[in-house]
Amino acid sequence: MGLIVQKYGGTSVGDLDKIGNVANRIIKTYKAGNDVVVVLSAMSGVTDKLIAMAQKAAEKPDRRELDVLMATGEQTTASLMAMMLIGMGYPAVSLLGHQAEVRTDNAYGNARIVNIGTDRIHQFINGRHIVVIAGFQGAEPNGNITTLGRGGSDTSAAAIAAALQADVCEIYTDVDGIYTADPNICSQARKIEKISYEETLEMASLGAKVLQIRSVEFAKKFNVPVHVRSSFNEEEGTMVMNADAEMERLVVSGVTSDKNEARLTFKKVPDQPGVAAKIFTPLAEASIVVDMIIQTSPTDGHNDITFTVPRGDYERAMAIGEKIVADLGADSIRGKTDIAKVSVIGVGMKNHSGVAAKMFATLAAENINIRLISTSEIRISCVIDEKYAELAVRVLHSAFGLDAE
Amino acid sequence: MGLIVQKYGGTSVGDLDKIGNVANRIIKTYKAGNDVVVVLSAMSGVTDKLIAMAQKAAEKPDRRELDVLMATGEQTTASLMAMMLIGMGYPAVSLLGHQAEVRTDNAYGNARIVNIGTDRIHQFINGRHIVVIAGFQGAEPNGNITTLGRGGSDTSAAAIAAALQADVCEIYTDVDGIYTADPNICSQARKIEKISYEETLEMASLGAKVLQIRSVEFAKKFNVPVHVRSSFNEEEGTMVMNADAEMERLVVSGVTSDKNEARLTFKKVPDQPGVAAKIFTPLAEASIVVDMIIQTSPTDGHNDITFTVPRGDYERAMAIGEKIVADLGADSIRGKTDIAKVSVIGVGMKNHSGVAAKMFATLAAENINIRLISTSEIRISCVIDEKYAELAVRVLHSAFGLDAE
Repeated sequence: MGLIVQKYGGTSVGDLDKIGNVANRIIKTYKAGNDVVVVLSAMSGVTDKLIAMAQKAAEKPDRRELDVLMATGEQTTASLMAMMLIGMGYPAVSLLGHQAEVRTDNAYGNARIVNIGTDRIHQFINGRHIVVIAGFQGAEPNGNITTLGRGGSDTSAAAIAAALQADVCEIYTDVDGIYTADPNICSQARKIEKISYEETLEMASLGAKVLQIRSVEFAKKFNVPVHVRSSFNEEEGTMVMNADAEMERLVVSGVTSDKNEARLTFKKVPDQPGVAAKIFTPLAEASIVVDMIIQTSPTDGHNDITFTVPRGDYERAMAIGEKIVADLGADSIRGKTDIAKVSVIGVGMKNHSGVAAKMFATLAAENINIRLISTSEIRISCVIDEKYAELAVRVLHSAFGLDAE
Repeated sequence: MGLIVQKYGGTSVGDLDKIGNVANRIIKTYKAGNDVVVVLSAMSGVTDKLIAMAQKAAEKPDRRELDVLMATGEQTTASLMAMMLIGMGYPAVSLLGHQAEVRTDNAYGNARIVNIGTDRIHQFINGRHIVVIAGFQGAEPNGNITTLGRGGSDTSAAAIAAALQADVCEIYTDVDGIYTADPNICSQARKIEKISYEETLEMASLGAKVLQIRSVEFAKKFNVPVHVRSSFNEEEGTMVMNADAEMERLVVSGVTSDKNEARLTFKKVPDQPGVAAKIFTPLAEASIVVDMIIQTSPTDGHNDITFTVPRGDYERAMAIGEKIVADLGADSIRGKTDIAKVSVIGVGMKNHSGVAAKMFATLAAENINIRLISTSEIRISCVIDEKYAELAVRVLHSAFGLDAE
């Protein structure tokens, strides 16, 4: 028995039947003696439908007003869920973002949670109510409605769990948990039982989009265990928590691939101070996020500078690059969009050497050329040709001993 | 130039094209130098769709939660309208019920407005913003969302106009204004240019459902002129205001019919004290609203007691009646649902005699039997057989000189 925050995503509350299934799951947890706080997303598809409507209303919808519109999605599921629970004979109450005192800054569409007042929630919990909170939304200091950006309900749940010092934050979704690789690519992928916050962050930011990065950051900061699991079965999912000795025995916990990047290279840039600033300042001003940056060692006073950007920003980045080629004194700019970034991730890497060498050798054995390399303390990423992405994931998964027995 | 509150109903904001038309109308008023506060209903059909959804979620949806769900309808139109106005280059802001400080009691589903804090609205008006308020909704003292009941957006508009001391409250709808009779029944019906609050109240409560009764009560109390007009053309509609000399020259302003009642009669009830209480107490306890009550003069110590109830409550009223027949010592109870109430209404009646006589004679000339009669200071109503309702309206409309020239 304890205080459990449960978050259900859009596919889990996609229609009234599914909301009914979720209600039964909530009741089961409640009847076991737990205090239950539920955080809900909008029904799947609803958010997209609202955005489409807004874009018909105005070419560039006002962000404050867009948030007011968006907030109706979670308002609908929260009230329907509370209604259903009450109809089934259990005390429940819905709270919208501002009613649950989810206080944010005023960055409409992508607001950050500043703090959460827990008095009202505690009051209902103490009265043994099931508290159903509309996820994804909050209010800024003037009482204007804000939303937290895509996947913001995960963030709501983690932040509420942290504020309430919940025993666990359960994130219910349409997958069983976090896998060692994407099962659609790698049939040998296995569900991970326990994984550290840090590894989850690396996996999420690298394309295995199970959990929102910000929600993991919240959970990590306040040390709330997050249980990622399916709302369609009763199986245990993946527990995201502080690294323990068991996790660190494994060298690599997972392999990911990300096809959402594109590569640009300035050829023969004079090796002078200030060159990097000339390249990356205009990109930053255009809000283009540069991921990897590699500079070759100089030959005849020139070197090549290569970097990656999100594929959706490729055309804009290329246009900016072409404008500054002459100014840089570079020879030319070239680009390539059919690339993929494959990564191996594991907290165990900290204590093991040879992971990079093994990764490079494994790829080389399949004649896969490595175009770019970047590393963090618990991750090694290689950019390769897109066509090899799936093969690379499979051979790395096998090489690092992750294949199912 | 002045401060104008404009309310647009569900058919006027039924889709994005219509919202666009309304936006143009708002801008026209704004550009003429007026301060504009807009109150919106949900898109037509949306409220019914939400109720249907709630009824699938729970047999008897919790009223607090139902209001949370309902409120999304107006939230959607208000944000879309503000977005559209901003997109067209005009400063606008949406306010939900609680943001506009529409404070109500906690009678979920049918809340009454207690007061409206105008600071926030004035602040935006002073900055020359078009303020778009979600109608139909408010918040009770604990911050829970409430709704004002069917047609509540009219009430929102009138109350906001009263609180702001607006110069006029314009109610835009899908009809041109208030007519001397239902044009679908009486081809000679004419649009009324000016009508008193009192007459409008009698007309509204008698089935000519152009304006919500409560909104007229608000407007009357705070003496806000209400202009009922169509959002689909530029014509002047009907001005609802304090009675003036011109109105009082007319004996009758309008003729209405109402088929929403049913009649019940206790036959041969002993003429004893306490009989009426025995009949009407159980009906009141069952929340059945009794409209007209007629008691015949006693014959042999007995009389007949006849009353009308809403047709939807007829079965329940009859069941209650059958239970108490014996207790009353009455002979029997009979009922009839195929009745209609026709009424003539006019503030001019106060100063004219013979209106009732003329009404009875007009109906008699068509061989229409009068089953029941009730009167107020400015209204005479007769219950007749349902089949004569339309004929009665037409002959009365003509007899009282209301036919179009």
